[in-house]
Amino acid sequence: MSDTPIYNRVAVIGLGLIGSSLCRRMKRDGLAAHVAGHARSAATRETSMALGFLDSVHESAADAVDDADLVVLCVPVGANAAVAEAIGPSLKSGATVTDVGSVKMAVIRDVGPHLPDGVHLVPGHPVAGTEHSGPESGFPELFEDRYCILTPAAGTDQKAVDRVSDLWQRAGSKVELLDAHHHDRVLGITSHLPHLIAYTIVGTASDLEHQLRREDTENGDLIETREVIKYSAGGFRDFTRIAASDPVMWRDIFLNNREAVLELLGRFVEDLTALQRSIRWGEGDALEDFFTRTRAVRRDVIDMKQAGSFNPTEREEE
Amino acid sequence: MSDTPIYNRVAVIGLGLIGSSLCRRMKRDGLAAHVAGHARSAATRETSMALGFLDSVHESAADAVDDADLVVLCVPVGANAAVAEAIGPSLKSGATVTDVGSVKMAVIRDVGPHLPDGVHLVPGHPVAGTEHSGPESGFPELFEDRYCILTPAAGTDQKAVDRVSDLWQRAGSKVELLDAHHHDRVLGITSHLPHLIAYTIVGTASDLEHQLRREDTENGDLIETREVIKYSAGGFRDFTRIAASDPVMWRDIFLNNREAVLELLGRFVEDLTALQRSIRWGEGDALEDFFTRTRAVRRDVIDMKQAGSFNPTEREEE
Repeated sequence: MSDTPIYNRVAVIGLGLIGSSLCRRMKRDGLAAHVAGHARSAATRETSMALGFLDSVHESAADAVDDADLVVLCVPVGANAAVAEAIGPSLKSGATVTDVGSVKMAVIRDVGPHLPDGVHLVPGHPVAGTEHSGPESGFPELFEDRYCILTPAAGTDQKAVDRVSDLWQRAGSKVELLDAHHHDRVLGITSHLPHLIAYTIVGTASDLEHQLRREDTENGDLIETREVIKYSAGGFRDFTRIAASDPVMWRDIFLNNREAVLELLGRFVEDLTALQRSIRWGEGDALEDFFTRTRAVRRDVIDMKQAGSFNPTEREEE
Repeated sequence: MSDTPIYNRVAVIGLGLIGSSLCRRMKRDGLAAHVAGHARSAATRETSMALGFLDSVHESAADAVDDADLVVLCVPVGANAAVAEAIGPSLKSGATVTDVGSVKMAVIRDVGPHLPDGVHLVPGHPVAGTEHSGPESGFPELFEDRYCILTPAAGTDQKAVDRVSDLWQRAGSKVELLDAHHHDRVLGITSHLPHLIAYTIVGTASDLEHQLRREDTENGDLIETREVIKYSAGGFRDFTRIAASDPVMWRDIFLNNREAVLELLGRFVEDLTALQRSIRWGEGDALEDFFTRTRAVRRDVIDMKQAGSFNPTEREEE
């Protein structure tokens, strides 16, 4: 691995968890000679400069991308169109625009039309993150050993793709190239649907808790503590972590991967209905067979070393 | 905390994760003068003796409970009735029977009728576990800082309840007393429904992966790797861990908490349908509001210190 910068000047638009983590990594490892940043909020811009992961900060996105060799869009995917429109005229010929969004067809649709000729679009998605948001929550190791998926259209300049790939590899990631439509479907099932379901059950539980408390209060049995939270180690806890992810980011993901999410949701509800029926009719064998099959999937996750901070004393259920 | 044993002789029926962890803790901390064990399988009995967490092992449950002051049922809840019937005649007067099952009404229904007069029933549920099963997977710290819920019927001998409570506290747990029916409803939402949903989505994803692979093969684009597993860090991973829990144990939980689970599932599907509709109609504000509300629940989990092995470098999603 070389120590020379991959880009002379990189502009990062959006300085939240992902954007600020990438800046930190680029500064730490000298991946860019100059890292310019822009965030809509003055507070975020100030915090980012104070945290020291930028060489320059700019009030407007258009100023930030001036003379940039690479522009990385790190805003919620719903904001991409407006940002692309704002920066389009300021992009220099030969520059590359990439992004970090969780949906890729929408990025091509929203960003592509605003890029002048001679500017390369290499959509990207680092499959990494935490449930925390904002410039303070980033850290340079965020992308270490995670996959980063690039979805350039056929015919995209190979050198532009290779340099973006190089950047992510030197940020610690394993880079994969996928068709954008295929990406949206695969991530729909591995990420978007799990988030939607986690959000739902946390909402269901939260409403129910208030109702349980009201019922018990009416019965003269006041619940002093928050029982749903208290006994969350039984499985619910893991869902609350996923459901704590950034609300605006996830709103935009669902709205911009609508077809895939709705189709996958249809499959999920079918499967859930089948299990519901097995429970109602006491079909123990069907339940046991299903649960035995899903157990095997976990072994595959562990075998592919995607199990995260797995350790035998992690406690989860009964 | 005293160093004297709480019970002279404890019999543990079922030597899996929970049973073997309790045995280990009792031996380590001298909570019982003698720990007798029984498991249906000869291999489990042999392994358990070899692991050294029992003073004696018995081929029949009835022999194991002979002269026991406390009997702890650690079998899947569907097996309780048969075990209770088998041990009933061998229980000595003044003995206490407890259990570790995740449903409590069913335990009272299945075990109660088989206990002779003068034997106390103190149903229990340590809210602790991992996704691993079997006598090798237990460890004495499993119950540390976890809740253990006891659901004795009104009028149960207070001394019997206090001693079971003492045992769990000395095993590291925080003991709470709850009404059995209320327990089943609260754990239905914090544990049973999350498991059902995790099992479902892992099944849905697994089926879809096979289909995606087939489609791509037909298109001449063979998928070499298992993409759903590969990109599981996007959220799916957390579900696979929950869905790796013991299939027989969970079959019995769903069959024995049927009414609560089906009722809660109805609420969940209603809420999911509402979100589905918001996605279909592009109602961004409704989605953002919902996700903002669920995010707050996570803060409560952290505030109540039920967040598990939480650390800021845990990675989860984009």
